[in-house]
Amino acid sequence: MTLTHDVSLQHTAHDATSPVSPARAAFPPADTVRPGEAPFVERHIGPQADERTTMLAALGYDRLDQLVDQALPASIRIGARPGDRPLTLPAPLSETEALAWLRGLAERNRPRRAMIGLGYHGTVIPSVIRRNVLENPAWYTAYTPYQPEISQGRLEALVTFQTMVAELTGLATAGASLLDEATAAAEAMALARRSVKTGSVFLVDPDVLPQTLSVVRTRARGLGITVVMADRPLAEAVAVHDPFAVLVQTPGASGRLPATDELGAVADAAHAAGAMVIAAADLLALTLVTAPGEWGADVAVGSTQRFGVPLFYGGPHAGYLAVRDGLERTLPGRLVGLSRDAHGDQAYRLALQTREQHIRREKATSNICTAQVLLAVTAAMYAVYHGPDGLRAIAQRIHDDARGLASRLAGAGLHVRHDAFFDTLAVEVPGRAAAAVAAAREAGVHLRQVDDDTVGVAVGEDATAADLDAVVTALTGADGPSDGTSDGRSDGPAALGPDPLADSARTSAYLTHPVFHAHHSETSMLRYLRALADRDFALDRGMIPLGSCTMKLNATTEMEPISYPGFADLHPFAPAEDAAGYTELIGVLEGWLAEVTGYAKVSVQPNAGSQGELAGLLAIRGYHLSRGEDQRVICLIPSSAHGTNAASAVMAGMKVVVVKATADGSVDPDDLAAKIEKHRDELAAIMVTYPSTHGVFEEGITDLCAAVHEAGGQVYVDGANLNALLGLSRPGRFGADVSHLNLHKTFCIPHGGGGPGVGPVGVGEHLVPFLPGDPLNPRSVEGLTDGHVGAVSAARHGSAGILPISAAYIAMMGAEGLTAATEHALLAANYVARRLRDHYPVLYAGRGGLVAHEAILDLRPLTKATGVTVDDVAKRLIDYGFHAPTMSFPVAGTLMVEPTESENLRELDRFCDAMIAIRGEIDRVGSGEWDREDNPLRNAPHTAAAVSADEWTHPYPRSVAAYPAGQHRGPLGAAGGGGLDKYWPPVGRIDGVYGDRNLVCSCPPPEAFES
Amino acid sequence: MTLTHDVSLQHTAHDATSPVSPARAAFPPADTVRPGEAPFVERHIGPQADERTTMLAALGYDRLDQLVDQALPASIRIGARPGDRPLTLPAPLSETEALAWLRGLAERNRPRRAMIGLGYHGTVIPSVIRRNVLENPAWYTAYTPYQPEISQGRLEALVTFQTMVAELTGLATAGASLLDEATAAAEAMALARRSVKTGSVFLVDPDVLPQTLSVVRTRARGLGITVVMADRPLAEAVAVHDPFAVLVQTPGASGRLPATDELGAVADAAHAAGAMVIAAADLLALTLVTAPGEWGADVAVGSTQRFGVPLFYGGPHAGYLAVRDGLERTLPGRLVGLSRDAHGDQAYRLALQTREQHIRREKATSNICTAQVLLAVTAAMYAVYHGPDGLRAIAQRIHDDARGLASRLAGAGLHVRHDAFFDTLAVEVPGRAAAAVAAAREAGVHLRQVDDDTVGVAVGEDATAADLDAVVTALTGADGPSDGTSDGRSDGPAALGPDPLADSARTSAYLTHPVFHAHHSETSMLRYLRALADRDFALDRGMIPLGSCTMKLNATTEMEPISYPGFADLHPFAPAEDAAGYTELIGVLEGWLAEVTGYAKVSVQPNAGSQGELAGLLAIRGYHLSRGEDQRVICLIPSSAHGTNAASAVMAGMKVVVVKATADGSVDPDDLAAKIEKHRDELAAIMVTYPSTHGVFEEGITDLCAAVHEAGGQVYVDGANLNALLGLSRPGRFGADVSHLNLHKTFCIPHGGGGPGVGPVGVGEHLVPFLPGDPLNPRSVEGLTDGHVGAVSAARHGSAGILPISAAYIAMMGAEGLTAATEHALLAANYVARRLRDHYPVLYAGRGGLVAHEAILDLRPLTKATGVTVDDVAKRLIDYGFHAPTMSFPVAGTLMVEPTESENLRELDRFCDAMIAIRGEIDRVGSGEWDREDNPLRNAPHTAAAVSADEWTHPYPRSVAAYPAGQHRGPLGAAGGGGLDKYWPPVGRIDGVYGDRNLVCSCPPPEAFES
Repeated sequence: MTLTHDVSLQHTAHDATSPVSPARAAFPPADTVRPGEAPFVERHIGPQADERTTMLAALGYDRLDQLVDQALPASIRIGARPGDRPLTLPAPLSETEALAWLRGLAERNRPRRAMIGLGYHGTVIPSVIRRNVLENPAWYTAYTPYQPEISQGRLEALVTFQTMVAELTGLATAGASLLDEATAAAEAMALARRSVKTGSVFLVDPDVLPQTLSVVRTRARGLGITVVMADRPLAEAVAVHDPFAVLVQTPGASGRLPATDELGAVADAAHAAGAMVIAAADLLALTLVTAPGEWGADVAVGSTQRFGVPLFYGGPHAGYLAVRDGLERTLPGRLVGLSRDAHGDQAYRLALQTREQHIRREKATSNICTAQVLLAVTAAMYAVYHGPDGLRAIAQRIHDDARGLASRLAGAGLHVRHDAFFDTLAVEVPGRAAAAVAAAREAGVHLRQVDDDTVGVAVGEDATAADLDAVVTALTGADGPSDGTSDGRSDGPAALGPDPLADSARTSAYLTHPVFHAHHSETSMLRYLRALADRDFALDRGMIPLGSCTMKLNATTEMEPISYPGFADLHPFAPAEDAAGYTELIGVLEGWLAEVTGYAKVSVQPNAGSQGELAGLLAIRGYHLSRGEDQRVICLIPSSAHGTNAASAVMAGMKVVVVKATADGSVDPDDLAAKIEKHRDELAAIMVTYPSTHGVFEEGITDLCAAVHEAGGQVYVDGANLNALLGLSRPGRFGADVSHLNLHKTFCIPHGGGGPGVGPVGVGEHLVPFLPGDPLNPRSVEGLTDGHVGAVSAARHGSAGILPISAAYIAMMGAEGLTAATEHALLAANYVARRLRDHYPVLYAGRGGLVAHEAILDLRPLTKATGVTVDDVAKRLIDYGFHAPTMSFPVAGTLMVEPTESENLRELDRFCDAMIAIRGEIDRVGSGEWDREDNPLRNAPHTAAAVSADEWTHPYPRSVAAYPAGQHRGPLGAAGGGGLDKYWPPVGRIDGVYGDRNLVCSCPPPEAFES
Repeated sequence: MTLTHDVSLQHTAHDATSPVSPARAAFPPADTVRPGEAPFVERHIGPQADERTTMLAALGYDRLDQLVDQALPASIRIGARPGDRPLTLPAPLSETEALAWLRGLAERNRPRRAMIGLGYHGTVIPSVIRRNVLENPAWYTAYTPYQPEISQGRLEALVTFQTMVAELTGLATAGASLLDEATAAAEAMALARRSVKTGSVFLVDPDVLPQTLSVVRTRARGLGITVVMADRPLAEAVAVHDPFAVLVQTPGASGRLPATDELGAVADAAHAAGAMVIAAADLLALTLVTAPGEWGADVAVGSTQRFGVPLFYGGPHAGYLAVRDGLERTLPGRLVGLSRDAHGDQAYRLALQTREQHIRREKATSNICTAQVLLAVTAAMYAVYHGPDGLRAIAQRIHDDARGLASRLAGAGLHVRHDAFFDTLAVEVPGRAAAAVAAAREAGVHLRQVDDDTVGVAVGEDATAADLDAVVTALTGADGPSDGTSDGRSDGPAALGPDPLADSARTSAYLTHPVFHAHHSETSMLRYLRALADRDFALDRGMIPLGSCTMKLNATTEMEPISYPGFADLHPFAPAEDAAGYTELIGVLEGWLAEVTGYAKVSVQPNAGSQGELAGLLAIRGYHLSRGEDQRVICLIPSSAHGTNAASAVMAGMKVVVVKATADGSVDPDDLAAKIEKHRDELAAIMVTYPSTHGVFEEGITDLCAAVHEAGGQVYVDGANLNALLGLSRPGRFGADVSHLNLHKTFCIPHGGGGPGVGPVGVGEHLVPFLPGDPLNPRSVEGLTDGHVGAVSAARHGSAGILPISAAYIAMMGAEGLTAATEHALLAANYVARRLRDHYPVLYAGRGGLVAHEAILDLRPLTKATGVTVDDVAKRLIDYGFHAPTMSFPVAGTLMVEPTESENLRELDRFCDAMIAIRGEIDRVGSGEWDREDNPLRNAPHTAAAVSADEWTHPYPRSVAAYPAGQHRGPLGAAGGGGLDKYWPPVGRIDGVYGDRNLVCSCPPPEAFES
């Protein structure tokens, strides 16, 4: 396959709305073309040709296309409808070409010193953390820590994150991160609404970050909340508006730092009125400034980006949310807590999971599934590496620089608007703001133009003396510092005015735990990072066959470009002319995603699947509103749906009506018809997953779409299972109006140990106007009108910094490669189902007894007969060297296996062999040969300490516990299978209930670990 | 400390001889200066301030300078001599600044498509290998695999390397890599000389690579070998010159590919004459071309650079050397072989160590210590990832491109000199060669100007169609391909002439072992790399307290720049105008090294410590020769010297005379005086290590220098222990004339698991003319004269690609930082000595009972009393989670501990605690409580399989075997200590003798691992 240069990069008519029409030249020029280089598709797909033949033979097929034809209904195949043309993408790039292309794009971005502020700041990521966390597959290929026994490393890192946030904010409990500051503020609003229960007004500080206000407005509308911007001092406004909560930004977007007394007065007023107080606070400032918990805030939110996380043109970054004592059970998102394992030793796991959306379904009030684990780990390790003194020194230097700058500007006759500030100045330059910002840009600094007369200057960790000089020059119009020997910092504190922090200075200690004092040398830090990583099981050790999660290869060539400075160091609000590479990348990627899904347009703004769902449903809601059909609020959701679906519908202002499933797991057509009929006039939408969450291609999907449309509803197809469709079928063409995609599933963005995710939303032509808006668009910031949906993420392009991953994947696979990946995913799932079906019933199947890309193994009869549970099997798989499949979703008591196309036959067989061996073990329990309570399944996973203990009381031998798959090394070249390379879980089975009863969510004192 | 811009980067008067005088601008401009950023020295040095206080208190000092004053003789301190000024280096850079500086230097290099050939070729390193090997501290911070039980991962990778080389060359046994192709050829020459034993002529193919000829000439002179360039066909020349060996290059430097019959005839003629045949062969060509072993070569040498290793401006790359059956025990360098462990399982270890220089001392005939392990692993994994079919496809495409190019050039009327070629063409362009090379450079391609009329063109894996077009255009002077649609490869094979490989085509299979067929998908490759890495213990897991090896931090900021394309992708023979960044870097680094050592000039050419020694001794030898003192050949070497010292002296043409040590380990002054007197007229040099290999600052060093000088000899101070001197003392100022340094010790280049090393040589003013010459200098290539030393490495600047590491280290530490590092190294060693001296006698000490930077623990009395050996203690330390100290060097039966400055107090104490606990264990053996043969020491290390075996027959409990340091987790934030993070050795104690008796040095068949 050679690169045909006349194939354009975008293909749909709708791409004209992209911000920039990408030039063909963005693809590698001829001098990087390597027609002979091994195609990437052969690296991405696990099974080699001979393995494919073996697998097909086991299923009774000669060719892969026969299997695919049998599995997939013809009616939904690409080309099934008149005028549906084949998937058209550029010919695939080699890895070398892809790197050259992305390097070229990165070089078209022009990061300057980012002094724009507004919640995004220049920071210095320590190299040891960049290389050993952000660039380390042991960290980035891990899954969400649902299996805590094999996730102790990142759980410890997340507890460290929670401790860091809790101590800096002065609040009792912090979660394990949220998507960004703006969504964290919106979640805090919803939390307050749930807790306070009366009132519908959410009072907002006028100095709030504009993107936070945008997202809060979007969310408020779905929840029936009225957002009121305070028109007088907040403490007074409380009395006027009777809000259920108040949001205070500190320091404000303008840089103004409210005095502690002023904040305390707001808190007192709010509390007196029965309202809660939410502080949006800069975490680094809190090393110097009174903590929100100390002046009475109930909740604090913010970003941890400036703790060593690249700007990434807006994301991904870890948002934070912390609450005072008593509110911990209302926290949205993930929360890590301490519990104990089967041996009574301390161990971490996700706490209070019963709160979570996937459990609460339509009762959920947040749809947050994921956290930003990889970034939260980065931020936590930044704090570990610097320690409290180091963080304080960084903050102090930033503050001193800002103060020196203020002094120099004042000395030059400019008015700096606020006397109290941390790092950001609002400088008045009447009529000259645009010129000053332009001059600074020429000198290599990005500033913020607040209005015609005002410039915002935010000092970051990476600002240099030359930058400060450039700012002075640009703002004063003078020719640099008058004193030629100035280092930009020459005005010592003595030369400055009154201390801008005088009225807000912090006196309390923070980060007192030993972990923040133990690893300040690089050697120590490196080993700590390695030790944490080694506790965990990620894709770099073995298969993670998680149904619905699509844990496939995150190729290095896809990952490398996110470290390029051109992608990593750009501020999200940098001017468009300095973001040409990103603009082109995003345009190309959105175009490709539209092409593969069959939608008119795709937006990459949603920075998680949950946000994509919300955006899709808001588009539907907006559409109905725009047509005057305000009453269309019913959202039909099948009983097997992902829990987020229902939560998202509620957040979009809809009412959930559940549709039953038939015995075979499909949507019950009779119940569907009945529900449509019953709610015909109020029908807003149906949300279905395709192929279904049962892993089946339902035959009736086109009829379903038609029936809903006929009733005036819209069809939302959840893209969770797109890995079974890509290249074979386009949801946008078989009847769906909206889908969200999961770039962290089908499009190879790594799961990062529980985030980042990216959840673009694709819509049909009629819904294009209702895609998410730019968070800085005045329509989003100042108030939503019916025709405008608003923003769902803080940054216009969401987690822009990791989009190169998916772009590289599509570019290297091409249309044929993507299709081949899907076909091999189907092959692998059916191969596993075939090998295991005699040992475990495969719960659902479609045509020809085939499954789609995943298979549900029914454990319920075995559990009933033997007492062995899915939990037991999942934990026992750890002893065999595997991450468990998805447990009890979508059907309780089952395991859902999704092998993906990236696993080769050797690994698939190793997994099947383990599952078959476990079935044999279950039978030994069933037959009474093994005790029902004391057997290798119930006691799994077995730690090295347990199997080598002096005393061994179990009725089965140690070797069965330790090396069920055999202890001897494999031959040279084998990996991951032999006992030589056995992964040992660091802790035994964890008692989750104990931890929930005794909730501890920050770093336990050292004594807690004494034996 | 702020960066003072008027401090120049170089400081000695001798820097004027540097190729380029570095501009101050090369240092970060003002806009990257970060005066407030945490100084790197605080990251590099392990102990924090409070820990330092604790350590000093344990030693009875208040301040560190008091300890240093006590430890170091005043006479050698900087400033002790009149006119000796303090160490002067630029103020230290922050990590951000260092990265900016090196990025700027990298950008000043202009790698173009490297089509120069001469043994260095463009290659494509798979991203998965770059990130997970070259950029992974688990691989690059490992030590040489002397402790095989904790080195099984890289030993397996090296066996794979050996198998790859052996099969491709068609020879029985290959070593684990050598330093480069040129030194491999020189080693092969010496091997042949040892094996054949008669004759002194080494006959060389005139088409040999010029740098190989240079190095061979240098080495030949020391060994008394006459190098003869064949003036007629080699098969005929053999009869005329009666050589002991013949070196054939295939393909030749000109690109000419000798026919198999022709090579067979050379071999027949040589063998008939009793001579050996050495083939210098391109390993990639051998996928298509008859293997040397198949046409009769006895030995093959070459480079594996084009197997995915960056060009690195000349190195580091792994050279290879393979021999026919029967010669395996003559191999120089490292050889990995199979053996078995205490449980009878297969395991790898270094084979035939009794051959090695450190054992054979003055009987050694090679001074090779190290291999190029990191690069050999990279090359081996490249072969694993591509497999035989992939390698053949790469070679075939390269060949097809070369053939197409030849056809197009011929079609344009140019004469391509040879009909048979693989990848390289000699193209005749009478009178236009310089112009054509310049035109190609303008078009982005580096070609080779052979002479005024001839251009060399070598096609690499990375050459593109555009490159081929550019070459045609440059050589023909035409305006590109006439056919606008040409892709540079449009002439299919049909359009070409007779097959250039017809007379040399390979028919035999290669890389048939499963390891070369199992990991062609990235997922599989990633897991294999992780599994291998996980078997090993490197600095990223814990302390490696190896006396004399200085295993200290290899900081990420030092490592990152070597991946920059500007450093990684430059051909060593690129024109100077495209290597400005390297020229400046090397000039700066050589200047800094001269400054810190007190020498007049330093050369970074030697690409290992052994080569540095040789270069230093050759300088001495050259000096004497230049003065007509040819008889000065005696080299005095103390009995405690590194084994390489003697071997290097022999290779430099000297005779070794051993000087005794006194009871306290110092050079015996009486014996020294006697030996000087006895050999006064023939005295060439003395080689001493300072501080001594016993870890002591000998008081008599200045007297020693004076005495040797008085007798007309030169003083060589081995720089192995420079980590105890840097910043405190300069060998070049206290009396030494020459030193080599080990950048992989004191200057932070990682050990790479057993290479690369870099061994610059520094000399006094009078020896500057005798520093190594440029290998392409005609004086080196065409024959050495007395005043010219010649080249010791293939590339002018040796392993240039890793010099940024040391440059970054010095730049970030500055003079005070380097001094502080040394002081902390002394502190750490003395702290450990103090804590352990009541448990193990510390064998030698200097003033005030202090050691230098390392301490020798005497196990001999304990061994005598209890039977517990140093081996037992070393292996038992693995159970405690440590790499053993240096064993039995310099004194048999002892352990030499060098903690370095990078270990913090926690880790130092963990080590001391382990050693003290082991002493307790020894006592239990001694008291009879534990059996003398069946105890935890003798049975160490204990594998997880052993301690969890169903049967446990040992008289001590499993917990003592498995978790001697306690099995419970440490508190949050602890790493590497608790049982939670225990490192399990993959195999039990290895029986080295068994493996030497049953030598297997290539991949064993899968059956070998069956249990």
